[in-house]
Amino acid sequence: MTNKWNAQNSDPAARGLMMGFPPPPELRVGAEGDISGSSFPQTRWAFSHQRELKATVNVRRGPAPASPLPRKLREDIDGVSFTTMDGEQMTWAQSLDAMFTDGIVILHRGTVVYETFRGALTPELPHIAFSMTKSFVGLIAGMLAHEGAIDPSAPAASYVPELEGSAFVDATVRHVMDMTVGVKYSEVYTDPAAEVRTYGVAAGYGKPPEGYAGPRSIVDFLRTLKKQGEHGEAFAYKTCNTEVLAWIVQRVTGKPMAELISERIWRKIGAEEDANIIVDPVGMAACGGGMSLCLRDLARFGEMMRNRGAFNGQEIVPGVVVDDFARGAKPEDFAKAGYTTMQGWSYRGQWWVSHNNLGAYTARGIHGQACWIAPAAELVIARFASHPVAANGNSVLDKVSLPAYAAVAAHLMRE
Amino acid sequence: MTNKWNAQNSDPAARGLMMGFPPPPELRVGAEGDISGSSFPQTRWAFSHQRELKATVNVRRGPAPASPLPRKLREDIDGVSFTTMDGEQMTWAQSLDAMFTDGIVILHRGTVVYETFRGALTPELPHIAFSMTKSFVGLIAGMLAHEGAIDPSAPAASYVPELEGSAFVDATVRHVMDMTVGVKYSEVYTDPAAEVRTYGVAAGYGKPPEGYAGPRSIVDFLRTLKKQGEHGEAFAYKTCNTEVLAWIVQRVTGKPMAELISERIWRKIGAEEDANIIVDPVGMAACGGGMSLCLRDLARFGEMMRNRGAFNGQEIVPGVVVDDFARGAKPEDFAKAGYTTMQGWSYRGQWWVSHNNLGAYTARGIHGQACWIAPAAELVIARFASHPVAANGNSVLDKVSLPAYAAVAAHLMRE
Repeated sequence: MTNKWNAQNSDPAARGLMMGFPPPPELRVGAEGDISGSSFPQTRWAFSHQRELKATVNVRRGPAPASPLPRKLREDIDGVSFTTMDGEQMTWAQSLDAMFTDGIVILHRGTVVYETFRGALTPELPHIAFSMTKSFVGLIAGMLAHEGAIDPSAPAASYVPELEGSAFVDATVRHVMDMTVGVKYSEVYTDPAAEVRTYGVAAGYGKPPEGYAGPRSIVDFLRTLKKQGEHGEAFAYKTCNTEVLAWIVQRVTGKPMAELISERIWRKIGAEEDANIIVDPVGMAACGGGMSLCLRDLARFGEMMRNRGAFNGQEIVPGVVVDDFARGAKPEDFAKAGYTTMQGWSYRGQWWVSHNNLGAYTARGIHGQACWIAPAAELVIARFASHPVAANGNSVLDKVSLPAYAAVAAHLMRE
Repeated sequence: MTNKWNAQNSDPAARGLMMGFPPPPELRVGAEGDISGSSFPQTRWAFSHQRELKATVNVRRGPAPASPLPRKLREDIDGVSFTTMDGEQMTWAQSLDAMFTDGIVILHRGTVVYETFRGALTPELPHIAFSMTKSFVGLIAGMLAHEGAIDPSAPAASYVPELEGSAFVDATVRHVMDMTVGVKYSEVYTDPAAEVRTYGVAAGYGKPPEGYAGPRSIVDFLRTLKKQGEHGEAFAYKTCNTEVLAWIVQRVTGKPMAELISERIWRKIGAEEDANIIVDPVGMAACGGGMSLCLRDLARFGEMMRNRGAFNGQEIVPGVVVDDFARGAKPEDFAKAGYTTMQGWSYRGQWWVSHNNLGAYTARGIHGQACWIAPAAELVIARFASHPVAANGNSVLDKVSLPAYAAVAAHLMRE
């Protein structure tokens, strides 16, 4: 598949995916039961049109005008050259196609210096964030911990008694936040037996396969998960942790995640469009990866983080909460996960932390979603993509993206 | 059902419908396959939360601020008294409960003089418009006819050749606009064999029943409809006409209905929230009844109509286009439909026209949706409801609502 398709021949606008009234059968996405539109190259349209395929809850921006994003576009960025982790020489412009980029905004010192929209994406269309959703949930949880509403050292089950009998019964909230819970849960998307596949159905991302008899809601799914190994010993990237964290946050506040993100982040950053989150069959938001948002709003969010929580004329997140993410966790715990492209990194509170000389940390999602924040370079890179390969770690994506981001940072810091 | 339930004991907020993480099983809406949440009293929540149950396309309001809606609330309206068509004496306040009202805004001379939100509805939540959607489609079609892009006297099939073989092949666009097409199509919601039930599945309102083998898109459904009687002889309220009209409009413009409504109406009236429309499995909007919008935006829309298309400092719809709806069609064609509560009325271009002394005309939707425009009273009444009875004509709804509206008009005209 990846050999046949490239950014050009899979371009959904050029191919006319979902265009026409009705679209011709061969150019339809999501019909005939494939409500997720989850096969490449249909994904190149579907990732920018999630709400047209699935039930979603609104993340309201509110009545205030969008916050200004000053623009001073620079043409020199396209020519920035770098070497991929595979030793290939590439320019920034070339990397956009290699990544199946749907859109990128680069903010330098708060000014848009680069912006591109490709494929099916426009400035007005929310694109699925996938696991970047986790970083929003982690941020809300971090704020609540700072406020004393959640105690990270308390057992997860002390907030959600329904976790009794699951792997999470003796895990602390901190273990859940940092994904150091010992739980039998495979995140391998290409394995049909992986728990992440059941999660996908239970959470409303996709339609149940014929004869499906598994859990029909996120929380029912979480209660099926069994312990494997010990808690607190190693980082292991497992989406179930985020859903447990979201369950705790929603139970403690009595508010749905969409409302929490709206009132604590979306209305305050001056988002220019509403965002949305896929909901499961009982109406709970898919907090592990179901949020869609517009690219410039992702850039605003990143810029707020870069400024230690201050943006749009106000403190949105306390600086110490942001600092805790940026500082990261123990790289030795992270190393046990074996990511060859992220050596020396850690994972803290649902954020990926590089521990590099730029202090870079990032929200990440499968198929190439990223919000890369590099404080020392005064830089934020917000990216949406629809790369045919799902996995982020150890994959083709990091091998190109991470050197590309570093090269742009070095280029902009030269001045 | 209607005997057991009233506005109080079915109140979704008081009952806690869809509240909790997760909501208790007995308070869930839409789970276990009932994606439409279409049974009363679940509808009292579902009508204000369509996008959380179904795939929807955004109708974008754009970046401009919401248009001002001046407010000068009057407490005297609650006490306005009237006699229902069944001879019952009732006050306006009492009628709100009798109608299972979710929200009402009354605009007098462009000022909000009355406003209430009940049940699950808030000012920020879009409520399903049901067949009021048709009046939006009719308005777009009327504008296109005025611009010469559509010729009402031309055969429908001249725009959409796929209508060959269906009832619509020898109908004109005018027949379709005014619902005088002779087509075998029953709109009786309580009849399981009625074509409207198949339409509901094909258009994405509800999940296909077990073993369903019928059409899976709106346009596939339309092509199955056969001729019955002659065209142009009698009004017969059949949703399929609106879907044919929407097909023509979208084919002619090359734009999806959500985009047409956004760029021609929603951005221009200064809507305060985005609207949305349910989409069918091939991504086409359910134009016969799938739009959801916020109540104050419905009031803005009505006020624009009352002002012959001028609102928010601009001409949004040419005055002659509005006049054509307000003037109505032939009451003798309408009379053949036998509506006892609407004697002397007509149906023109997807609008219901009273031909009364107020020049009142209205958009209407099942379960109590209305946008009632009374030019001579300088009055607009925008209403959302979740009445247990679906049908509008000849029903409990008209018998209370129409006298109630008339009484409020008389009351306000006294000054």
